[in-house]
Amino acid sequence: MTTQRQYQRQFVRTFFTSPTAVEGEDDSAKMLRSAAKLRGMQAPDTWIPDNEDATAPSMRDEGVENIVEVVAEHGADFPGEIHPRVVWHRDSPSTRYEGFQQMLRIADPEGGAVEYIDGFVIPEVGDLDDWKKADEFLTIVETEHGLKEGSLSMSVIIESGEAELAMSDLRAEMGKPSNNLERLFLLVDGEVDYTKDMRAMTPTGELPPWPELRHNTSRGASAAGLIAVDGPYDDIRDVEGYRDRMRENRAKGMTGIWALTPGQVVEANTAPLPPESGSWNLEIDGTAVELSEEDGLQVYRGDDLSLTETSDGEYHLTVDGEAHDLDEDELREKLLDLAAYVPSMTDIVDSMAEFEAAKDAGRGAIAMTQSTTLSIDGVEVDIERDRMWDEATYQAAQTPIALFQDVYEHRPDQHEELEEMYDTDVVERAMALGD
Amino acid sequence: MTTQRQYQRQFVRTFFTSPTAVEGEDDSAKMLRSAAKLRGMQAPDTWIPDNEDATAPSMRDEGVENIVEVVAEHGADFPGEIHPRVVWHRDSPSTRYEGFQQMLRIADPEGGAVEYIDGFVIPEVGDLDDWKKADEFLTIVETEHGLKEGSLSMSVIIESGEAELAMSDLRAEMGKPSNNLERLFLLVDGEVDYTKDMRAMTPTGELPPWPELRHNTSRGASAAGLIAVDGPYDDIRDVEGYRDRMRENRAKGMTGIWALTPGQVVEANTAPLPPESGSWNLEIDGTAVELSEEDGLQVYRGDDLSLTETSDGEYHLTVDGEAHDLDEDELREKLLDLAAYVPSMTDIVDSMAEFEAAKDAGRGAIAMTQSTTLSIDGVEVDIERDRMWDEATYQAAQTPIALFQDVYEHRPDQHEELEEMYDTDVVERAMALGD
Amino acid sequence: MTTQRQYQRQFVRTFFTSPTAVEGEDDSAKMLRSAAKLRGMQAPDTWIPDNEDATAPSMRDEGVENIVEVVAEHGADFPGEIHPRVVWHRDSPSTRYEGFQQMLRIADPEGGAVEYIDGFVIPEVGDLDDWKKADEFLTIVETEHGLKEGSLSMSVIIESGEAELAMSDLRAEMGKPSNNLERLFLLVDGEVDYTKDMRAMTPTGELPPWPELRHNTSRGASAAGLIAVDGPYDDIRDVEGYRDRMRENRAKGMTGIWALTPGQVVEANTAPLPPESGSWNLEIDGTAVELSEEDGLQVYRGDDLSLTETSDGEYHLTVDGEAHDLDEDELREKLLDLAAYVPSMTDIVDSMAEFEAAKDAGRGAIAMTQSTTLSIDGVEVDIERDRMWDEATYQAAQTPIALFQDVYEHRPDQHEELEEMYDTDVVERAMALGD
Repeated sequence: MTTQRQYQRQFVRTFFTSPTAVEGEDDSAKMLRSAAKLRGMQAPDTWIPDNEDATAPSMRDEGVENIVEVVAEHGADFPGEIHPRVVWHRDSPSTRYEGFQQMLRIADPEGGAVEYIDGFVIPEVGDLDDWKKADEFLTIVETEHGLKEGSLSMSVIIESGEAELAMSDLRAEMGKPSNNLERLFLLVDGEVDYTKDMRAMTPTGELPPWPELRHNTSRGASAAGLIAVDGPYDDIRDVEGYRDRMRENRAKGMTGIWALTPGQVVEANTAPLPPESGSWNLEIDGTAVELSEEDGLQVYRGDDLSLTETSDGEYHLTVDGEAHDLDEDELREKLLDLAAYVPSMTDIVDSMAEFEAAKDAGRGAIAMTQSTTLSIDGVEVDIERDRMWDEATYQAAQTPIALFQDVYEHRPDQHEELEEMYDTDVVERAMALGD
Repeated sequence: MTTQRQYQRQFVRTFFTSPTAVEGEDDSAKMLRSAAKLRGMQAPDTWIPDNEDATAPSMRDEGVENIVEVVAEHGADFPGEIHPRVVWHRDSPSTRYEGFQQMLRIADPEGGAVEYIDGFVIPEVGDLDDWKKADEFLTIVETEHGLKEGSLSMSVIIESGEAELAMSDLRAEMGKPSNNLERLFLLVDGEVDYTKDMRAMTPTGELPPWPELRHNTSRGASAAGLIAVDGPYDDIRDVEGYRDRMRENRAKGMTGIWALTPGQVVEANTAPLPPESGSWNLEIDGTAVELSEEDGLQVYRGDDLSLTETSDGEYHLTVDGEAHDLDEDELREKLLDLAAYVPSMTDIVDSMAEFEAAKDAGRGAIAMTQSTTLSIDGVEVDIERDRMWDEATYQAAQTPIALFQDVYEHRPDQHEELEEMYDTDVVERAMALGD
Repeated sequence: MTTQRQYQRQFVRTFFTSPTAVEGEDDSAKMLRSAAKLRGMQAPDTWIPDNEDATAPSMRDEGVENIVEVVAEHGADFPGEIHPRVVWHRDSPSTRYEGFQQMLRIADPEGGAVEYIDGFVIPEVGDLDDWKKADEFLTIVETEHGLKEGSLSMSVIIESGEAELAMSDLRAEMGKPSNNLERLFLLVDGEVDYTKDMRAMTPTGELPPWPELRHNTSRGASAAGLIAVDGPYDDIRDVEGYRDRMRENRAKGMTGIWALTPGQVVEANTAPLPPESGSWNLEIDGTAVELSEEDGLQVYRGDDLSLTETSDGEYHLTVDGEAHDLDEDELREKLLDLAAYVPSMTDIVDSMAEFEAAKDAGRGAIAMTQSTTLSIDGVEVDIERDRMWDEATYQAAQTPIALFQDVYEHRPDQHEELEEMYDTDVVERAMALGD
């Protein structure tokens, strides 16, 4: 049997939480209401009315009412999926029972919200047996309310060592007739509570990077046909840091991330899409430095690389603290090693279409050429690189296109912005790939 | 059921090994005797009379006698726990039988040592079935000697791929009625033999860093309610390297480390405690550079950052090889991104107490402000940062305080040094937190 | 029971794939034929006639015939092992059946190839149950063709999250009477398809580094007595990058790597062997810089370190952007911290022999001294380091020697090159170690 995703979205870029009831406001549902009206790039792929940590314990009863009211009113028009988070704790039966009751109330058809609710988010899960308790409650909720068994999805927050371990066994357990774990949708890291559970400490109190947790979550999602989402990035002002984190995550196969503000939603909806235009990098001292395009040249403006032409037509290049005397070919070779091209949406679509045509004509591999002229300290050097494209390259390049297709199919509210970002023509060609 | 620790100490900072019998000395128990007399910061949280690798095979019979004699004499006064290490190997039945006999002899009440012995350390374990063999021998030792079943703890050294894998299954096995694995206490990495078992090589022969092993050990400990301890740091002269390693470990949730000398014990007992005074860092090129306080200013004295004020009231900042022209607000913003504050014990206690008071008054989150004046190349810039404290921040900050409370409660011999390090007043307030 | 390797080679340095049938050539088996004639350092430890990704689907029937023909003709003389790769996919029963048929045909004794075939490589495996299907087909192939059950080895390519997870359970499954998984030999990472399966993306399209996958593969191999091999390094021109990757892999216990060209085979056959001559490094800013030997001095020629002697006999040292004023002893201490020695084959053999002699004389530990004179900016500084060698150090040093012995024993075709690289005398002494 093929590992298959059981739900509509193949990718989730954004997981946006809103408090369900805020004390001291005229309208305690104010935050829910404003979130429900988000559209386009400001609207997340999954919206999480958060009746757990984001809402004060004393306000959670009111939070349930607010979710029902706001989702009943606005759910039909909301462009993303809606997944309320309820309370739960692996170590507390009373919290689990409270979470069960919250789900029962939110999913009551009388309230009119459940038809717009895609599933629930369960925090603080433990062993798989604990996940099964939540799954069983969801089955009961569905039965009591006359909903189809398995129709409500379940997403979990991984914020304990035991939950991290549980992800290894997920695939084997999901097929068993005694549970409905096929309803699983998102595996979401929760690094704040995970750090507490692991009793980790950093001098400044910032969160440890937890690369192994993120790998294991991404792998668990891959093996069970689910979607991996990273936890909150607290420093809302630090857009560059948020982008770096997302780039790191994508290299781990974790495409989604928590967003705390509509601003973060825009960033996180945009970041995994192929760039509008291509660019050249030089990798110096382990860091990729983007070159700036000026009059068709790719210009380096930094201090870590210096290049001079000597009187005898040789070149003197200093990079990573090492000096090299090179002839023209050696220089070209050396710079080619340092340079890398970041393809644009158009580049990817062109290459894939060219490869599809070659395959139809019976060829299994084609060479794609990238060339440019670098300018370093005023010295210009032409470089050119051939890259072989075979079936594997093609398949790997498909991930960003598959993501784009998934977004375009499920988020009509973003069409306008996407077509502003890319040419309409490229969008059409991207949507036609792989047919 | 809650994941609970079954033993007294919540944290173990230090795991200090001593050879049990040294050849060619008048008194072969000399090293044991001097270790048994350590007090205060020089005395470890766990002391390991090491009848395995630290003691020559021909001396191990005498080692058993020495352990019994020295622990019987000094055990009552020793301020830490005592956990002798015996021989064991997953691949050798005769070594395992020898380890069993060593435990039988050491725990014999006739010798008078067992009442001061908290448990045994089993090296070179393999699969969980191998751990169970050691557990069963401990159960027999307890029964034969009229000790309470489960009263002797068991700590293991992880020094093989199979033992690393075994840690994933620990939690599920510990509850079973056919074993007494609830006696487990420490999971200790043994990187020297692990490197051999993995057949890893480095050019200089230094140990690989094994970040994944340390993560998996820390996670295994977290999931099973145990304590994770890192292996020996061989380069005894390299105090800075030892501190770096411990800082890395704490960010993984691994609070304890092996100590080979009383000097390392002092370092490792001190390192996880909150600092006496706070300090400011600038993060440049991925490295945190501590600033020096001078006349209330935080002064940067390095080459990787340069700042000048231009004639038009703008600023020119160079950092990480990139030049920026900034106005005052942009400069402040940029430096705020680079700066981080390392809170002192007093800071942590103050913040937690303030949050506890706010919570009692019905508020779920408060803002804590940190401000200072940076001085870079003679230019002074005021920066100020608000950090939101909510329940999760509070819980995360609790780890260093919980560690301090655990130390203070179980190590009266360190009270004097702790009260010299911190003010008595702060110590009292720290002990009262969380009540 | 001891974890034991069930096959002849203890180490595999190289995994070299060749297309089995190339379209449009006079002789479609041309690539196979030239690979079969490789000898010495150009010949891999394992040669993989690749009837999967390297060969166009339409050519794979012909590929089977070519394998049979070329291996029957050249197999007797080929110096490495021969492991054809057939098609397989965890998600496709028809592909699995095709792989079964390919194995049946290749192993048919009528063709005359099977006596030179050591085993098969199965790509794209999934859960362990999927591995068992391939194992069962191999058992049937053996039975049908009158071969001894378990005589054909099986190697797998790890290119999915589920296969990565499966490696954790391998050890427990391998002993079961219902399978012949003892035939397993290599665990090979396949990062291209793994990246696709994990849906990971990088800006430039280069492969993510996947450190956790490599750790888990190496650990899986260690726990089950198998050999871990890393996947293809695509940038064939980038020899330095290939060497860096192999050095990283060895620190993870992964000694083997895929090779795409005879040039890469030479690199990968050579890299894990101890160097011909020793060298000194300075570790600056996290990077090891090799010093150059000139007239018995170890000379540093870089920009990241500067050293001057002041008029009062003190020294001014700048390193990692920090300035230090030091007296002679402090300077020596500081440089000793930065310096590391990379021992040569002769150094390792000398040290091990010395330790073996000491052990025979009843001593458990000896000190080995390394000394040299550093020259930095014209200032000369003598440094000297003692390193304790005990049983554990000796055991760890054995890995490169065990690898050398394994190579020397099984690859007589490389003797000439090995004896050119090292002195004949050192080779003899290395082969005698551990007896």
